[in-house]
Amino acid sequence: MDRRQVLGALVTAGAATLATPAVVKAQDTITWKMAMSWPRNSPGVGMNAQRLAEMITTMSGGRLRVDVYAGGELVPPFEVFDAVSNGVAEMGHATPYYWQGKDKAFHFFTGVPFGLSVAEYTGWLYFGGGQALWQKAYEPFGVLPFYAGSSGPQAGGWFRKEINSLEDLQGIKMRIAGLGGEAMRKLGVNVVLMPPGEIFAAMKSGTVDAAEWVGPWNDIAFGLYKVANYYYMPAFHEIGPALEATVNKAAYDALPDDLKEIVKRAVMASANESYADFTYGNVKSFEPLLAKEGVKLRRFPDDVMKALYQASEDTLTEISKTSALAKEIFDSFVTYRKEANNYAKASELAALEMRAKAME
Amino acid sequence: MDRRQVLGALVTAGAATLATPAVVKAQDTITWKMAMSWPRNSPGVGMNAQRLAEMITTMSGGRLRVDVYAGGELVPPFEVFDAVSNGVAEMGHATPYYWQGKDKAFHFFTGVPFGLSVAEYTGWLYFGGGQALWQKAYEPFGVLPFYAGSSGPQAGGWFRKEINSLEDLQGIKMRIAGLGGEAMRKLGVNVVLMPPGEIFAAMKSGTVDAAEWVGPWNDIAFGLYKVANYYYMPAFHEIGPALEATVNKAAYDALPDDLKEIVKRAVMASANESYADFTYGNVKSFEPLLAKEGVKLRRFPDDVMKALYQASEDTLTEISKTSALAKEIFDSFVTYRKEANNYAKASELAALEMRAKAME
Repeated sequence: MDRRQVLGALVTAGAATLATPAVVKAQDTITWKMAMSWPRNSPGVGMNAQRLAEMITTMSGGRLRVDVYAGGELVPPFEVFDAVSNGVAEMGHATPYYWQGKDKAFHFFTGVPFGLSVAEYTGWLYFGGGQALWQKAYEPFGVLPFYAGSSGPQAGGWFRKEINSLEDLQGIKMRIAGLGGEAMRKLGVNVVLMPPGEIFAAMKSGTVDAAEWVGPWNDIAFGLYKVANYYYMPAFHEIGPALEATVNKAAYDALPDDLKEIVKRAVMASANESYADFTYGNVKSFEPLLAKEGVKLRRFPDDVMKALYQASEDTLTEISKTSALAKEIFDSFVTYRKEANNYAKASELAALEMRAKAME
Repeated sequence: MDRRQVLGALVTAGAATLATPAVVKAQDTITWKMAMSWPRNSPGVGMNAQRLAEMITTMSGGRLRVDVYAGGELVPPFEVFDAVSNGVAEMGHATPYYWQGKDKAFHFFTGVPFGLSVAEYTGWLYFGGGQALWQKAYEPFGVLPFYAGSSGPQAGGWFRKEINSLEDLQGIKMRIAGLGGEAMRKLGVNVVLMPPGEIFAAMKSGTVDAAEWVGPWNDIAFGLYKVANYYYMPAFHEIGPALEATVNKAAYDALPDDLKEIVKRAVMASANESYADFTYGNVKSFEPLLAKEGVKLRRFPDDVMKALYQASEDTLTEISKTSALAKEIFDSFVTYRKEANNYAKASELAALEMRAKAME
């Protein structure tokens, strides 16, 4: 119900009803459920989803109230997309590759190995046609996607032994998600999947030899430095992985224009704030993490990186063959990535390199 | 007047007044002027300020209408801050260093040479105390600042001759703004200032030997490649220079909570969108610019960079001595920059380097 309708109702109802403004306020209020894949108050993810809900509620003056449900409260973490699709929740907060079982092309909206930085990614989504392709991919499910931020470049993972060559990867057991796992598998890694809550114990008991989680801020909280010494950065598979806020399309379409804009722009603001939050958290956690006993910072050797790149590119090509839309997304993404990489070499990469050298 | 007050007025007025909703709507509408330092529809800056005004107007359902005035329409470009301060405009769109004549410490809120990347900068502002310091710096003027985005790393400028050593800088005439100009002056450059509209003619006639403007997207539009061959990237002085949206403090404080949140979050969304806009524009313009006849991409040699860094650091130290607040801002900024630089070496810088190598 929009403001004019409320006013119309007021006029019809007459002065008697008007003496109780609370009734009007109640008529005017829409309540949405936001189901998130994260635990409540979890740093970077849960906290930012909760702030997003508050933003929408406050900006709308309470006309659109968004109540947040942590993973498992309304639906399990990996059923958020379905909940938004079927209207059990009007909003969701997660990451697109969680639903790659529905369509492999969804990977392009989280990001792919050796993919786009956060700035490049928003450029593609907002101005380069990426958003339209994403909407096309989610349309069959009645879900409207919005970009909700990023951790920035993640860490490559914790390893119990150093990786000095491709041979060192053979047969090791590693917990690694998404397309990163696909690439590692192609190089002979025994990729295992497990919920985040089990990673620490599996590493400690030796059930797995390596595991990637997020980055310094989240990894230090998880205590992973206690069960492995070698910390590989950066992640080859996640340069700027995207979070998403999804909205049930019918619920969105039923909103008046001002609330539509509030939802859209709140997510855009939240995307900015989330990335800032992760960046600040990682900046402040990095040195304390390296100072922990035994932690040794490493990079994968160039030949390992090159092999991971080749394996990843093969996977992307495979995905591009799954549907006409997958091909369209692949073409748009990889064309833009090539141009973005060329520009980055002279701008962001060169600028950070310049500063690092000067401050040495 | 907030929603509850309007409702109160309605109730008092009774049913007779209520039959004309238009009256209520008029009472409820606030109109703000936004003065920008930019030309109307200028890429990256003017366009984003205009989108911001539309966002606020739409999100508020027209209750807060923001009308945009280009540079010179309401006040000249360099009087935007004063206009917001004295209430001639309720909002402004510009960049903090334009007002460095009032307080040199304002430079830290645009960014300094060898400063912070965009992500690092938002981390400092939103989560590291930067926003509170900025508000403190603008408080004496009755102006409330908000971070409104960035171009990302800018270009170092167009030179008629190659710069192979510190000697090559001696006595050349260069148009370069802000603290970048201060550093160049310390290295023997004859720094000249001129409005953007005069740069092209001055380069063409040989009145100046070098000039920096923004980056590929804006530089190609300006035609600077026609009057100089050597394009130096990246800028030592602008890694992630900030735009600002300023609000008259009294006008902001008079808003109801929902409109306050709309203004604050609209700027946060706009900051995200602006950076995406610049990134996309630069990515798409870079190769076409390099393909122009005679354009040669260059980087300043390491010893020139090192000297520019030393000169810039001296300037920052000088600024830190101008007031207690300047010292407080300086300390917060440089402490965080050191940590951010260390983290970037293992994350953003390393990730972009990894991708560039893999894609070679």
